[in-house]
Amino acid sequence: MKKTSHIENTGKFPGLNVNEGVAQPPSINPYLKKRIKRSQYTTDEYIDGILAGNISILSQAVTLVESINPAHQQQAQEIIERCLPYAGNSVRIGITGVPGAGKSTFIEALGTHLVKTNHKLAVLAIDPSSVRSKGSILGDKTRMEELSIAKNAFIRPSPSTGSLGGVTRKTRESIVLCEAAGYDTIFVETVGVGQSETAVHSMVDFFLLIQLAGTGDELQGIKRGIMEMADGIAINKADGNNVEKSKLAARQFQNALHLFPKPASGWEPKVLTCSAFHKLGIEEVWTLISDYITFTKQNGFFDKKRQSQSKYWMYETITEALKSSFFHNPTIEKLLEHYEVELCQNKVSPFTAAHHLLDEYFNRQK
Amino acid sequence: MKKTSHIENTGKFPGLNVNEGVAQPPSINPYLKKRIKRSQYTTDEYIDGILAGNISILSQAVTLVESINPAHQQQAQEIIERCLPYAGNSVRIGITGVPGAGKSTFIEALGTHLVKTNHKLAVLAIDPSSVRSKGSILGDKTRMEELSIAKNAFIRPSPSTGSLGGVTRKTRESIVLCEAAGYDTIFVETVGVGQSETAVHSMVDFFLLIQLAGTGDELQGIKRGIMEMADGIAINKADGNNVEKSKLAARQFQNALHLFPKPASGWEPKVLTCSAFHKLGIEEVWTLISDYITFTKQNGFFDKKRQSQSKYWMYETITEALKSSFFHNPTIEKLLEHYEVELCQNKVSPFTAAHHLLDEYFNRQK
Repeated sequence: MKKTSHIENTGKFPGLNVNEGVAQPPSINPYLKKRIKRSQYTTDEYIDGILAGNISILSQAVTLVESINPAHQQQAQEIIERCLPYAGNSVRIGITGVPGAGKSTFIEALGTHLVKTNHKLAVLAIDPSSVRSKGSILGDKTRMEELSIAKNAFIRPSPSTGSLGGVTRKTRESIVLCEAAGYDTIFVETVGVGQSETAVHSMVDFFLLIQLAGTGDELQGIKRGIMEMADGIAINKADGNNVEKSKLAARQFQNALHLFPKPASGWEPKVLTCSAFHKLGIEEVWTLISDYITFTKQNGFFDKKRQSQSKYWMYETITEALKSSFFHNPTIEKLLEHYEVELCQNKVSPFTAAHHLLDEYFNRQK
Repeated sequence: MKKTSHIENTGKFPGLNVNEGVAQPPSINPYLKKRIKRSQYTTDEYIDGILAGNISILSQAVTLVESINPAHQQQAQEIIERCLPYAGNSVRIGITGVPGAGKSTFIEALGTHLVKTNHKLAVLAIDPSSVRSKGSILGDKTRMEELSIAKNAFIRPSPSTGSLGGVTRKTRESIVLCEAAGYDTIFVETVGVGQSETAVHSMVDFFLLIQLAGTGDELQGIKRGIMEMADGIAINKADGNNVEKSKLAARQFQNALHLFPKPASGWEPKVLTCSAFHKLGIEEVWTLISDYITFTKQNGFFDKKRQSQSKYWMYETITEALKSSFFHNPTIEKLLEHYEVELCQNKVSPFTAAHHLLDEYFNRQK
């Protein structure tokens, strides 16, 4: 039973169980145990397995990256460091859109097209809310039946532990492992309603917004500012009676984008229509992405962006750590509650409150 | 010579001299000296002067807020604290737009209209680049001749010292003083090309974008994402041959805004045309702003936003201080140069680099 065994080996069920808190058929518990036992690989074994493209070891390395256990964390960092020289040779694509826009179906359609044309595809998700909303890619696995069993596809749900900063950082680290394992295309899925879009935008080469035809009302869900991040917009569900409506929406979006200044890439964001369900217009979206990659590699923006993204993640990680050291300080936590009340009653200025808290923090560190 | 003496007393020339680094006619030096001597007021004298609406003392209090001298800083904080109970009773309006959009002319036109209708108006600027670009409100005083001598107008250039975070913080603090001095309307001007728009958006009730008719090319200057922050857009220079073009642009922007989700305020951003130079459509802009204020006060968003803004500034001030303590650490500064090079050569992961720097920092503090 190739299929099942493949799914076990990807560690996706255990991953789902561990990360998504989805009820687990007893029959699968053994795999979970096995994964935990198996993750006692040496760093060399992880490296060899990843570089050999062993999907099971890759999956367990990602689990290691996602682990909050300090020992796991340290080993994960070693693995990432040693994978770095083999990483970077992929096209990283961020895919966002409100729930209902048809992200999973789109990823299934474009992903299947890619693996059929000999691409190796890794699909990662950033969606800390998925634990609750079940909105993550594996929360709705049925829509990705074909892709989830494809030999050249690696699919991981969002790590559900830790802060948004932590989750996005782990995803950014997992990209390195997937690239070292030979995946030439990385999808990073995010639900366009959270705070995670800037983070995704800072780890991908191309940012795709999946949109639906319709007026502002249908778009209420999507976070402001996302449209201006998009290198491309795909109006999905352009089928049946919806075709004309979708073409009109595409024109409206294209006009709106014309009012925006050109992005730093020098690329004019494009709007296409597609039907992920009927697999219409999917290849065109891939052509658009490929054109963008060619364009930005020629004008040097591709490398420039990757470098500034590396710096972004270094500075972001530092800032997150500084804030966590401050805001998880028990004394600060207590004082903070007090000052938030005072602030709302206009009894203290934000700046005095901040200075009192900072004095407290730095004095205690002395 | 009422006019000149008024200008002296506002401390605007000294302010200009000190903050803008503009060459100073010898004849005005005495006022500068006078200001420096005068700023030796006691905190009580400052409070009494501000609450009495003494424009000269207010001006010197703002200079105290902008001072980097620790003693001045401490006194400034005391003054702000004691002004707080008298602050908050104003409408705070952020005004942004690229150089050439006619911000100064617009502020002159709307400001003059306001003081003639018995408003007390304070105009502050956030533009750390103004020292170089001379793009700040007082860098081009000629366009604000009428307003700059109006009894009920208080105009301050951007403080030119310190980081952007520092500059915006000082402006946010100056708002408190202006409100305590009885100014019921505060303009915060910012050039829509910098990093300061988010900060301004976080200190005002209404965010106005001054725009020009035309295609994307004319808009290249403006920073991406700003349009989605705007509660209103005014297409300026809608006069002569430009009227039709401006009306068309207004329709285009209005359509574009329809594609965006409604902002949290529940307010549908509006687009108007005006000619600041010919004082056309200016009252309509004010009516729009007033409608917004009424609307958000009725649905409770006005107070909710002010409270979340207070928290924003407390958290922002803390984060800025934590970062500055880290990045101004001499050891860190040296290591950072090293790791930035390693990053660009893909020799280290952003996360490992960050962790090394953080270990170094926290160990040294022990």
